[in-house]
Amino acid sequence: EASAKVIDGKSVAKQIREEMAIEISRMKESIGIVPGLAVILVGDRKDSATYVRNKKKACESVGIKSYEVHLAEDCSEQEVLKHISEFNGDPSVNGILVQLPLPSHMNEQNVLNAVCIEKDVDGFNPLNIGLLAMRDREPLFVPCTPKGCIELLHRYGVAIKGKKAVVIGRSNIVGMPAALLLQREDATVSIVHSRTKNPEEITREADIIISAVGKPDMVRGSWIKPGSVVIDVGINPVEDATSPRGYRLVGDVCYEEASKIASAITPVPGGVGPMTIAMLLSNTLTAAKRANNFK
Amino acid sequence: EASAKVIDGKSVAKQIREEMAIEISRMKESIGIVPGLAVILVGDRKDSATYVRNKKKACESVGIKSYEVHLAEDCSEQEVLKHISEFNGDPSVNGILVQLPLPSHMNEQNVLNAVCIEKDVDGFNPLNIGLLAMRDREPLFVPCTPKGCIELLHRYGVAIKGKKAVVIGRSNIVGMPAALLLQREDATVSIVHSRTKNPEEITREADIIISAVGKPDMVRGSWIKPGSVVIDVGINPVEDATSPRGYRLVGDVCYEEASKIASAITPVPGGVGPMTIAMLLSNTLTAAKRANNFK
Ligand SMILES: NC(=O)C1=CN([C@@H]2O[C@H](COP(=O)(O)OP(=O)(O)OC[C@H]3O[C@@H](n4cnc5c(N)ncnc54)[C@H](OP(=O)(O)O)[C@@H]3O)[C@@H](O)[C@H]2O)C=CC1
Ligand SMILES: NC(=O)C1=CN([C@@H]2O[C@H](COP(=O)(O)OP(=O)(O)OC[C@H]3O[C@@H](n4cnc5c(N)ncnc54)[C@H](OP(=O)(O)O)[C@@H]3O)[C@@H](O)[C@H]2O)C=CC1
Repeated sequence: EASAKVIDGKSVAKQIREEMAIEISRMKESIGIVPGLAVILVGDRKDSATYVRNKKKACESVGIKSYEVHLAEDCSEQEVLKHISEFNGDPSVNGILVQLPLPSHMNEQNVLNAVCIEKDVDGFNPLNIGLLAMRDREPLFVPCTPKGCIELLHRYGVAIKGKKAVVIGRSNIVGMPAALLLQREDATVSIVHSRTKNPEEITREADIIISAVGKPDMVRGSWIKPGSVVIDVGINPVEDATSPRGYRLVGDVCYEEASKIASAITPVPGGVGPMTIAMLLSNTLTAAKRANNFK
Repeated sequence: EASAKVIDGKSVAKQIREEMAIEISRMKESIGIVPGLAVILVGDRKDSATYVRNKKKACESVGIKSYEVHLAEDCSEQEVLKHISEFNGDPSVNGILVQLPLPSHMNEQNVLNAVCIEKDVDGFNPLNIGLLAMRDREPLFVPCTPKGCIELLHRYGVAIKGKKAVVIGRSNIVGMPAALLLQREDATVSIVHSRTKNPEEITREADIIISAVGKPDMVRGSWIKPGSVVIDVGINPVEDATSPRGYRLVGDVCYEEASKIASAITPVPGGVGPMTIAMLLSNTLTAAKRANNFK
């Protein structure tokens, strides 16, 4: 008797990729250029390698050319900076990603700061975040995961203006920019974090909830106002003996309870996750259009 | 029967200036250098001239050397940029202010962007705002008015961590950075603006209220939770036939009502206003210490 509409991120992401593929062939036909995304991977972490492979596959699926540099775990920071500098100067590369985490002997901030802001398609550059926070200013890129959350609201026709929104979590990559985006769309935003005294009470007032915490099933049915819209960013492994891998992935929100109370909710997996990578492709296309003055 | 403690910004600002004067003479004695603040004024607006004069006087009162350039209303943007560039390169100048508004033939953003971030003591540079928004990053300067609000809370021993705070207004120079600052100190922050549906209800939940709207007496007694702390940034002229100038200044908060319900409140004038200029001096001293590696 779950009554909430399921916000199907997987299918929206697919639709967005199809729209992008059309745009990219139009670009190729009219100016002979396709967008390019460069990924720099350092070391041999399996999860990082998987992420990079998925990004490459997603690029190919829409016609973005991908470039990869794979460096050894013990290479120098200088070496990484050299590759960034080359990509910065290469007009066929429109976006540059450095897969995190970097080996501990490197200074992550140094490395990330070396990516020129016009190619920083993750949108994590502090200047970009400042532009996102300011009225009458425009960021060059909106960070991918929060952009994906808002895009889901838009595509499902959820009104934001004048609504009460609660963002749970305030990380630089999800919670904080999500709150700034909701505010740009004229929601009244409250931000809940680990020091908040009564998160349940505050969350229960929201018309829109975005949760990005990393705690399985933290947000219970009792936290949710009937009819509210729930975007669950959390991706959390929990033990599950019945699964072949021994675990399964759940969100921050107790889906079983929430789906009986909310009017719409994203599942985990298949909600925000697929949107993040679609938004990365979208930011890369934006960068390519801007660099080539293509409308 | 007003019960609220009056948060006396005028006397706190005086105390801060005294503390700064001591720091600045220590600096002068030990390294032979005093901080310098340059102000660029374009045109003949009376109010702007008054602000500039007040800033110069405040500088002198603590031992900061002030530099002024006064340009004609019809001078070119190029001319303004030339002076900014000179001040950028002048080691005796640690802070640069361009008095706003500029004449309409100039591009304000262009001009402000020309001030190097190390001397942008207003703290309005988007990169600086991004650093303020991000966890684990530090802005070079905290914008003066919101910094003054938080300083008042600190000096009056108001706990911020874990408290519910409501900021009314979200301008780039007051509301938005005030919300970011409260969040940095671990308050749970909600931001109310002109599109908020039920500002009264939301505000009534706050332990700490900062109002920066510009509407006389908008925040009534009924908006305030008993015992909360109210920081009123608004400076609004209202007609007053009994005053020699024909008007007097009031805040956004109806003081008469609020002072019976809040536990502490800033008056207008004499609350946040004097703090803004004290924080400008404080940012200039910070810049000078940083530039000269003086602790
Ligand atoms: N779908 C996707 O594509 C993506 C999913 N994720 C997932 O989203 C989740 C969050 O990721 P990320 O933002 O990077 O995580 P971080 O660990 O960086 O941030 C977690 C935030 O949650 C807050 N928090 C922690 N405990 C509580 C609590 N009990 N109540 C309220 N708030 C709390 C923290 O507060 P404080 O600031 O006070 O410490 C912090 O702000 C993770 O599950 C991650 O896997 C992340 C990125 C992309
Ligand atoms: N003490 C001092 O040193 C200083 C005092 N001030 C004073 O502070 C006040 C605000 O200044 P400033 O921030 O520059 O002003 P702005 O006009 O730039 O911003 C006003 C903010 O108030 C919001 N607002 C407008 N109407 C309402 C309403 N009915 N309910 C809720 N919010 C509303 C606006 O919302 P929206 O974004 O939706 O339009 C906007 O965010 C002024 O009185 C100013 O004189 C300012 C600077 C320094």
